[in-house]
Amino acid sequence: MVQKVAVIGAGPSGLTSVKCCLDEGLEPTCFESSNDIGGLWRFKEKPEPGRANIYQSVVVNSSKEIMSFSDFPPPAELPNNMHHSEVMLYLRLYAQEFQLLQHIRFQTTVVSVRQREDFVVTGQWDVETEDAEGQRETTVFDAVLVCSGHYTQPHLPLADFPGIESFKGRYFHSWEYRNSNGLEGARVLVIGMGNCGGDIAVDVSRVAERVYLSTRSGAWVMGRVGQGGLPGDIVCSSRMQSMIRNLFPNWSTRTVENKLNEAFDHKLYGLKPKHGFWAQIPLVNDDLAGRIISGRVQVKPNVKEFSGTGVVFTDGSVIDEVDTVIFATGYNYNFPFLPPEIQTKSGFRLCLYKHVFPPSLVQPTLAVVGFIHGFGAINPLAEMQARWATRVFRGLKELPSEKIMLKEIDKDSEIMHQRFVCSERTPLQVDYIPYMDSLAEKVGVKPNVLGLFLRDPKLALEVFLGPCTPYQYRLSGPGQWAGARQAILTQWQRVTQPFRTRVVAEPECRAACGLTSLAALTGAVLLGCLFLYQHGWVPSSWPSAFLS
Amino acid sequence: MVQKVAVIGAGPSGLTSVKCCLDEGLEPTCFESSNDIGGLWRFKEKPEPGRANIYQSVVVNSSKEIMSFSDFPPPAELPNNMHHSEVMLYLRLYAQEFQLLQHIRFQTTVVSVRQREDFVVTGQWDVETEDAEGQRETTVFDAVLVCSGHYTQPHLPLADFPGIESFKGRYFHSWEYRNSNGLEGARVLVIGMGNCGGDIAVDVSRVAERVYLSTRSGAWVMGRVGQGGLPGDIVCSSRMQSMIRNLFPNWSTRTVENKLNEAFDHKLYGLKPKHGFWAQIPLVNDDLAGRIISGRVQVKPNVKEFSGTGVVFTDGSVIDEVDTVIFATGYNYNFPFLPPEIQTKSGFRLCLYKHVFPPSLVQPTLAVVGFIHGFGAINPLAEMQARWATRVFRGLKELPSEKIMLKEIDKDSEIMHQRFVCSERTPLQVDYIPYMDSLAEKVGVKPNVLGLFLRDPKLALEVFLGPCTPYQYRLSGPGQWAGARQAILTQWQRVTQPFRTRVVAEPECRAACGLTSLAALTGAVLLGCLFLYQHGWVPSSWPSAFLS
Repeated sequence: MVQKVAVIGAGPSGLTSVKCCLDEGLEPTCFESSNDIGGLWRFKEKPEPGRANIYQSVVVNSSKEIMSFSDFPPPAELPNNMHHSEVMLYLRLYAQEFQLLQHIRFQTTVVSVRQREDFVVTGQWDVETEDAEGQRETTVFDAVLVCSGHYTQPHLPLADFPGIESFKGRYFHSWEYRNSNGLEGARVLVIGMGNCGGDIAVDVSRVAERVYLSTRSGAWVMGRVGQGGLPGDIVCSSRMQSMIRNLFPNWSTRTVENKLNEAFDHKLYGLKPKHGFWAQIPLVNDDLAGRIISGRVQVKPNVKEFSGTGVVFTDGSVIDEVDTVIFATGYNYNFPFLPPEIQTKSGFRLCLYKHVFPPSLVQPTLAVVGFIHGFGAINPLAEMQARWATRVFRGLKELPSEKIMLKEIDKDSEIMHQRFVCSERTPLQVDYIPYMDSLAEKVGVKPNVLGLFLRDPKLALEVFLGPCTPYQYRLSGPGQWAGARQAILTQWQRVTQPFRTRVVAEPECRAACGLTSLAALTGAVLLGCLFLYQHGWVPSSWPSAFLS
Repeated sequence: MVQKVAVIGAGPSGLTSVKCCLDEGLEPTCFESSNDIGGLWRFKEKPEPGRANIYQSVVVNSSKEIMSFSDFPPPAELPNNMHHSEVMLYLRLYAQEFQLLQHIRFQTTVVSVRQREDFVVTGQWDVETEDAEGQRETTVFDAVLVCSGHYTQPHLPLADFPGIESFKGRYFHSWEYRNSNGLEGARVLVIGMGNCGGDIAVDVSRVAERVYLSTRSGAWVMGRVGQGGLPGDIVCSSRMQSMIRNLFPNWSTRTVENKLNEAFDHKLYGLKPKHGFWAQIPLVNDDLAGRIISGRVQVKPNVKEFSGTGVVFTDGSVIDEVDTVIFATGYNYNFPFLPPEIQTKSGFRLCLYKHVFPPSLVQPTLAVVGFIHGFGAINPLAEMQARWATRVFRGLKELPSEKIMLKEIDKDSEIMHQRFVCSERTPLQVDYIPYMDSLAEKVGVKPNVLGLFLRDPKLALEVFLGPCTPYQYRLSGPGQWAGARQAILTQWQRVTQPFRTRVVAEPECRAACGLTSLAALTGAVLLGCLFLYQHGWVPSSWPSAFLS
């Protein structure tokens, strides 16, 4: 019987894991190597080796209602896209509300996690830790939740850049970037156009003479500011939209891409990638287009080679007198404390059932939480994983056999590689709602939308047509939260509240009201669709182009 | 007979005035108090009293094709919205091309401009100057072009802010702002939401803990990045659009406002002003919405009072611990060197015929150039004024009688006050194309669009449906430029060229191509409209709502 659980890391995933343990009556001990919670979100004046780092100007890509934990809506007055300091505030409030801090041992690093000799029977683990004084200690745990996160091991592929060894300027990985200090008037090359590269390019461009942003494959760029000024992720994350996306993937992709091209033609801006919009997490940036049109940021192709202070690109173009190169070339992942046999791979990803459980363990007493990417926020994904994992630890849910799990992992990987652009650096990617629903089904908390339409149409309408916020997974089943219904029905208030710093007389928020009207209108029409969808009655004779 | 012309100031207006003098065979002497050309656009590390100032991150609001001089298209590779350093480059290229520098006397300040005793007969002026050593000199000139610009006298209305005298933080006028250095982690209040206030708020918000942006009346906000990523001002500045705007002002206003609200609901964002879009130059900012949604900038109403380090707003809300207040409260204008009798006012504006000539002078030998605001760039406006003024100086064009000029000025002021939000700080505002055309008519360079459709339909289509770029005023008449046709037909190439830093395979620039197709399609339909328009055949029975 699992009782004592080791939680490794006190970032968002670790915190929610501690809470899930408590909810299930388990005894969590969270080991955090630093002296504070927050993980990635704890801003460090100087980068700390082995830890995730952020720069000073970081603002979350996901909006607050989308990135919240499912039973802890963010305070209404917090902005929709929070600065890292506000994310920390939210995490502190969460830790305080559920009294998580007392379960955390700070400045304690997990050195190794090993199966005990009697693991086959007990499922127990020896967890060896080291404190700030270098004192080592080994403790026995019934189960382990690995929440040590990504972005800790900068990937600096110098070998791919001939001539870099003789480059006369300075270069460093984006992991080291704090702010633009020292880059005033400089000519800066940022290599890589993930969210990090985009952010840094824009940040530096405010003070640099010129910023070049080199990208091999381009990217789709969307704003935090979506239609009508509402958060971009909140206006495009409903169950209805997800349904339409799954039914008509090509049409849905074209629609989104056209919309983004209306904002600025990605071809004209040299950004258009070969992949479709839904194949990779987009670059979220409200200012990149403005920096490109003003020439402060110039988009460039991949670097061919460096030479002195010059850079040659694959199109033959050359830039001279580059002072600084910032490699926004992503991260490697590793779990140095875990036994190698549970770190095997499937494609580029770790071989984990539903991205959580190593299938090879005879006792399912170790789970990885928060090592996931989706078109949505990681917090609720991690929370759902932890809810499931703790239910499994308690023996309330069973895992399939190793064979079935391996088969499913392979199938998942195959679909993932078809659907998404996966690579060493972006090893995995899931569709947010389908993935959440699949775990929620295992936990027993997947909302029954159709049933809801009969029992509580007002709520059902918001659940189906409104943003798929995490509160939906607290409406029923284990961990049900009495405040969930209210949290869903008041989510638009929390979205509009932070804007009310200068109230313009006249009725408020046309956009949100518009959405409600749209909801009422389309809701009725789409009920039928939903009925078909929930029961899998998609006629097989539908044009294959729509379903491909 | 006018021969020697004093040009006061070597900013963009002064430079083009020198060139216009040369074009007309006059002998310009340009007095520039600093040691370089550029005026406003010359970045000064420290603000220099009596001179216009810009901050380090300034990028022009107008795009390069819209802000260019009419016979000097900007180099294709320059970005569409230039950084101030690139504007300087463009001005230097202009000065070099037309050999203007040799006519400029640097470090020479104009102290006074006085009519000579025989002014009634000669129209001559005594221009007293002072050099860097304090040596004064008086020179006789046949005519004077005043190009000393705006934005030189910061308006700091401390009396309107009770308690500011005991405010414990630092405060200064936006004129002093250079960059965000020293404001790291600060709580900053920016008062005033003109383009300067918006820019500074966004700039500071990258490093400050929080920026509050206080505005009495709100503003319409548009991006430099317009539809499809093309420059916002280039896609909405055609003669056709101007015509539609004049025929259906209400509809046109609603359409623009709806479009802007689609980007973000100005009411939701607390920005919606009482005035319609066309009543005031909008705030041009691509990043403000992104800073608001992330809470880095909070929009606030007008300040009621200061108290210690706190600020009370008119809605009763209070902010504590404000470190720094930046007054982006605009500028006063003055011309200390001019005789007071030619600085009388009409409404808030100077009493100048067509914003150029003081009507009281018996000899029209003094003109003010570039003291103007329009929904367009100042450079071409100033150039057109200078072209007209130099033609008048040469006696090739006559001014009406003082009585008629005064009557017209009053009429203009009345219409201006009806159409636009005018105030002490924003004393004047003109409709770009109608104003340009009215001056062009006087100079004899107004393009005959209808005639052009018969002679050169390809060009006519671009002149009517494309952006109303300044080259249109060099197609015929005095100052005709052989390159004008080509400049117009290649303007889209110069717009798209700077984006070609990473070329995405596939046909280019859907947006521009789309515009061309649209042009072809609507061109035919609208020829009829144009015919009516050019001949003033707007039936008086049209619904008055459309015409009001």
